[in-house]
Formats: sequence, structure tokens, C-alpha cells
Amino acid sequence: MAAAITPIEGGVTAPLGFRATGLHCGIKASGKPDLALLVSDAPAAAAAVFTTNLAQAAPVLVSKEHLAASGGRAIAVITNSGCANACTGPQGLADAREMTVLTGRALGCDPRDVLVASTGVIGVNLKMSVLRAGIPTAAGRVAADGGLLAADAIMTTDPFPKSAAVEIALPGGRVRVGGMTKGSGMIEPRMATMLGYLTTDADIDALRLKRVLTEACRFTFNAITVDGEPSTNDCVFALANGASGVAIDDVTEAALFEGFREVAKTLALGIVRGGEGATKLVAITASGAATEADAWTAARAIANSLLVKTAIHGADPNWGRLVAAAGRSGAQFALEGARVRIGDLVLFEGGRPFDDRAPKAAQYLQGPDLDIEVDLGAGGPHRATVWTCDLSKMYVQINAEYRT
Amino acid sequence: MAAAITPIEGGVTAPLGFRATGLHCGIKASGKPDLALLVSDAPAAAAAVFTTNLAQAAPVLVSKEHLAASGGRAIAVITNSGCANACTGPQGLADAREMTVLTGRALGCDPRDVLVASTGVIGVNLKMSVLRAGIPTAAGRVAADGGLLAADAIMTTDPFPKSAAVEIALPGGRVRVGGMTKGSGMIEPRMATMLGYLTTDADIDALRLKRVLTEACRFTFNAITVDGEPSTNDCVFALANGASGVAIDDVTEAALFEGFREVAKTLALGIVRGGEGATKLVAITASGAATEADAWTAARAIANSLLVKTAIHGADPNWGRLVAAAGRSGAQFALEGARVRIGDLVLFEGGRPFDDRAPKAAQYLQGPDLDIEVDLGAGGPHRATVWTCDLSKMYVQINAEYRT
Repeated sequence: MAAAITPIEGGVTAPLGFRATGLHCGIKASGKPDLALLVSDAPAAAAAVFTTNLAQAAPVLVSKEHLAASGGRAIAVITNSGCANACTGPQGLADAREMTVLTGRALGCDPRDVLVASTGVIGVNLKMSVLRAGIPTAAGRVAADGGLLAADAIMTTDPFPKSAAVEIALPGGRVRVGGMTKGSGMIEPRMATMLGYLTTDADIDALRLKRVLTEACRFTFNAITVDGEPSTNDCVFALANGASGVAIDDVTEAALFEGFREVAKTLALGIVRGGEGATKLVAITASGAATEADAWTAARAIANSLLVKTAIHGADPNWGRLVAAAGRSGAQFALEGARVRIGDLVLFEGGRPFDDRAPKAAQYLQGPDLDIEVDLGAGGPHRATVWTCDLSKMYVQINAEYRT
Repeated sequence: MAAAITPIEGGVTAPLGFRATGLHCGIKASGKPDLALLVSDAPAAAAAVFTTNLAQAAPVLVSKEHLAASGGRAIAVITNSGCANACTGPQGLADAREMTVLTGRALGCDPRDVLVASTGVIGVNLKMSVLRAGIPTAAGRVAADGGLLAADAIMTTDPFPKSAAVEIALPGGRVRVGGMTKGSGMIEPRMATMLGYLTTDADIDALRLKRVLTEACRFTFNAITVDGEPSTNDCVFALANGASGVAIDDVTEAALFEGFREVAKTLALGIVRGGEGATKLVAITASGAATEADAWTAARAIANSLLVKTAIHGADPNWGRLVAAAGRSGAQFALEGARVRIGDLVLFEGGRPFDDRAPKAAQYLQGPDLDIEVDLGAGGPHRATVWTCDLSKMYVQINAEYRT
């Protein structure tokens, strides 16, 4: 069903029955916030999607364990920034488990109802002494207006915090979806990277929540790229505590999905906008694909092409690079049927270029928000959009500077 | 069989019975050489490997056609630089065919015995008028010492020409393998890119030649990357004219293969050394892989990782990025068995980092010629090496500058 969806304030604590906070506990030498706690007043249905990287950080393994043990239930998510707790061996696993124990003790709940995430430097162990003091302090400070503090505390080198929330008017009443995220590419050496949190006061079971989350991520968090590098720590959590009293059924699920997608898209595009060295946000659509998989494959190949990303940085309407990236992507592709659109301008179609439109296209490419489409010419109805950013000298500088 | 293989001078005309030349016919506005002709005195067994990009340039299509029609025979290869004749529709196909007709007429041979290649700007039609004058001129100038002139004429924005040749001592006599190549990434906007030419005076049939060429390319031209972008025009040709009188059989094929591999490796590494913005040549080996395919997959993923390439540029011994790239590559990977070696220094093994070795590794990474290995920890015996270069600000500058 279609429903009215309105943006609201408050981020991850915008839905009823969620509290959060963020503070500095001592992991970051800079004194910036490095510990975030998100709590649901009642046990919440919980779901998560995790990185597909086979080098998985300890908190990813522990959160997976807990979700499996609880059958999709959680009360809190504890997150530290400044240390990824990845490639840290048995000690890392013990530390991630202790974070859930400390949180459970402070909140009076089972540690298995606590999910855990870490982001920051790979290959360094957590300073457990500061977490042993910091987690109880955070538990004492969580508040219904603490969503923005939490969004601050999960940042590493993100240029700005990323929060979003919407209200959805359903026949049975209003429900809210909130969220926060962090990530900006693997900016600092060994930075392990993307975290997302979605909350809702809708009443929905864990299986349905998992489905809504997975579908929403497909078109948002899984459809962005800064440098094509899924990290060891990526995860997106969803918590649904039912505090609105509005139950989600087969009919209203679609509206809740739209709300999830809206919030997740705002957050995901925030990551790209704040991508390392990025000056432009670019929607790359592959259309005319023989299969949906082909559409994704081609859109991703174009969005990750260094030649495409540098051309966009230079405001160069270089349709040849778009065609070449589509042609090598592995997707079915027919040059004679292919078509390249930059903004409103078709630059290549029916086997021939329209180079007289290049100056207008170059002008369009100066803008910060770009829309590019490549029709693969395969004659199919499938399309997919991936969001990417340009590749600038700043990206190289950020990532080449020696860390010591 | 193992045989003595000695480097020799002369490039693509080092083998007996080959002549070549290069000249400026008028395609490049700069006045630099833009036309190369390679001729075998006798009809040669011919084989080629072509780009896997589905957006294939007209000369690629025509060369494929001719090799199929002749069953693997050729007398000449005509090449222009400065224009890729790609994305040029029916006119482009007609132009590529005319290039073979002009060459055949000038040499007195069937046009189907002529192979054709183009490299340069995509989406622009060839200036046929200058080729109609230039091709007969080139045919009048081919000489047994013209290999280096030809290597000059196939360049686009390559920083230096790339030729190589070896002599192989076989029981039946000596045979020679020569070669030239061009490519440096898709440096200029819409530049369509990599061409390779291998010649031999060994007496070998087309099927065997195809096998030797394909295997040699696998470990050389197909094992390099500058930016992971196979172009619309990539091809490697092999011509064998038998002028040495030494026939290749099942026993001597291995030695000829080694000669092909040696020449092809020298040429391919030349492309990476001259890669856009490159300051370092880096051999990336993935070992301990469960399958050979896994080894290639992981080595390629690491070699194309922006984070790895920028870290190397910054001489940052950032093993976390190597592990993360291996983990997301799709190859079987086990963190607890993984191992990272930079030069002689092991920086990660058995789940733990050896950060005290980082300063030494940083010093090693200052060098121009680097050797890095990631053991995937999958317990298998398979390994693969891919050569890549670092990613510098110069790459971004070269590729972002607006072409008009």
C-alpha cells in the first residue's frame, strides 16, 4: 500500500521507546566522542545485514551469534569508534563479548540481547579499561533525545554526522522509522568502516523485519560505493520495539518498507556525499539490461570505474569511458543498441556520438548532484541505480599519507 | 624442455624474415609517428587474443574475421595510432576493411592476410585520406631493422616505446621471438588502449601458436593492471613465419613458450612501469589458495584495490588493507590462517600483527620495484601473481583534465 511519509527530526531516537547517547570514554586520543549506546525500552525485534567480507571483525561475529541465539531479538546496541576490533584474534572476540556483558549488566538485561559494533583502526586491541568505565556511564545517560549524540559518537573520519527519520501514516495509526550511519570510505589507514542503525516503533516480527531491512538495504546501503571496498566491520542493524502499538501486516509492510528505504537512502547518500575527497554525488543507472543481475553488474562496474570517476571529477562528458566500462562489466551489452545519457543530454545512441552536445554536458557535470544513464542495448526491461562519487586528488592524498 | 634463452636487440623484427616500419601519415596533429606496418616475408601462422570487452572496436572485429577466414594465417599487421576507430558504427567497419585492402594492394597480397589494429581516441572516424597515402608509403619502407620505428609509431601517450626480443637455442637450431607493445592505461579521455605484437621465425602451426600465445598472455599481458579497465581495442597478435627452418614439436613447444613468456613479460611490465602516474611496479602474489581461480581472483582484487594502490604510493605498510581486499575478493579466505609479506617482512600471521616491523617495511616500500604476498589461509597449493602500479595524484590529474 502507498502511505504518506513525512521527514521528522530526531534520528535514531525519533521512533517511540528508543533512547540513546554518545560520549567520549577514552578510545580516541583526540577527546572526540567514541562510545554510542542505543537502547529500546522494551525488547525489540531485531535484524541485521553484515559485511560479505570474509575477514570479519570480532563484533560482527558476536552480533551474528547473539541474533542467532535470540532468534531475532535485542534490547541494545553498543558501539565504539576509534578501534575496529578486527584482525585481533581470540582476544578481540573476548573483548567484543565483554562489551555485551558490560552493557547487559548496566541495563539489567541478558548480554545476548545486546548487539555490538566497532569501527576504526584494524589490528589494534580495544582499551577495555576505558570501556569498563564508559559503558555504565553511557547506560546512565541514554535519553529519548539522544539520537544525534549517538550519531556523533559513531563517526571516525566522517566529515559530518548522518541521521534521518520519517513518520508513516498507516490506517491503524502513525509509525516512525529512524536511523543513523557512519562511513566515508576506508579513509584512515586500516579504517573499518560502514555502520548503519535503523529503528522503528512499528510492531513487526523479526522475520518480517529482516525482509524489510534486507530489501531496503538492497536499494540503499548496498547500492552505494565510494571505492568498491566492503570493509571487515560493515553492518546495518534494525530494531523494532512496537511502541507505537501499530502492527504491521502483509498490507502495511510495503509502506513500512518505503519508510525504511527513505531513511536508509538518506543515510546511504550521506556516506557518498561525505566520501573521501568527494565533490559530487552521482547516480549511475544501467538500463535496458537483459536481467536484473546484469543491471546491477553494469551499474556497479561503471560506478567503480576509475576512468569514469576521474572524468566526472574533471567535468568531462566522456561517454566513451561509460561505454567501455559497461562493455567490460560482464553484463550482456550490444554497442549498436547502447545509449548514454548525461543529465538530459543523450551523447551516444544508435552507434553514433552527438559531440555537439558535449559542451552543455560539461557544464551540467560541474554540478554537485549528477544523473547518468547507460542503456546496455540488450533490449531487456531491467534497470538498477548505484550511487557513487567522483575520484579526486584528495582521495589519493587522504589514503596515501603514511599513518605513522 | 628447458633451453637457453638470451635477450637480443631488434624488437619485433629480431626474428628472421620480418620487416617493419613506422611513420607519420597525418592522423596525429602533433606530427608524431601514427602508422606502423609489420610484414612477414612469407605467409605466417597467425594467432591473436582479443579484448573481452563487449564494446569491440571495428579493427578488432575485422582482424577476428580475417583470422577465421584464413584459418590462422597472416602476412602483415597494419596499425594506426591517434584514433581507435571504436564506437564508429558501419563507417568504422568499412574503414577498418579498407585499411586491409590498401595494405594488401601495396604488398601484393590478399586483404584477408592482413590484420588491422587501431589505438587512440574513441568515437572519432579515421581520416582515410591520409591512410590512403600513408599505407603505400609504409609498404615501401619496411625493413629488417624497422622494429623500433614500428614500436614508436604505435604509441599514444605512452611515456616510452616498448620492444623486446630473445633467442632460444633448440636442438634443431636457434629461433627468435620478438615483440612490441603499447599501452599506459586509458590515459587520454576515450583512449583505447593496449596492443601487443609477438613475432617468431620458428616453424609452428597456427593451432600450436594459438596455444603458446594464449598461455604466454595468461601470465603476462593478462596478469597486469593499471586501473582494471580492459579497453575496446585490446589485442595481442602472434606471427610465426618459419624463417629459421626450425620446426616446433611437442618437445620444443615448452621452450618456445618460455621465449614467448619472457618477451611478453618484458613488454607487459613495461606497460605497468609506464602506467599513468605510476611511480612503482608491484608484484602482488596471492598464495595458499584453494583453487587456481581463487588465486587469480584474490591477486586481481588486491592489485586493483584503490586503498592498496594509494597505500603503496604513500609507502604505507598497511597490511590491514591487503587483508580486507583479499577477504572481499570472493576467493576462499580464512583470517586465522592468513599471512601478509611485504618484501622479506611478515607483517601479519597467525591472527596477529607484527607492527615492530612496520618501519622497515615502510622503508622497503620507498623502492620502485616491490614484491607483496598475501597467503589466503585457505590451505591450498595455488598461487598467482598480478603486476600493478601505485595510484598517484598524477593519475587523477591525467584522467580528470577536460579533453577540450
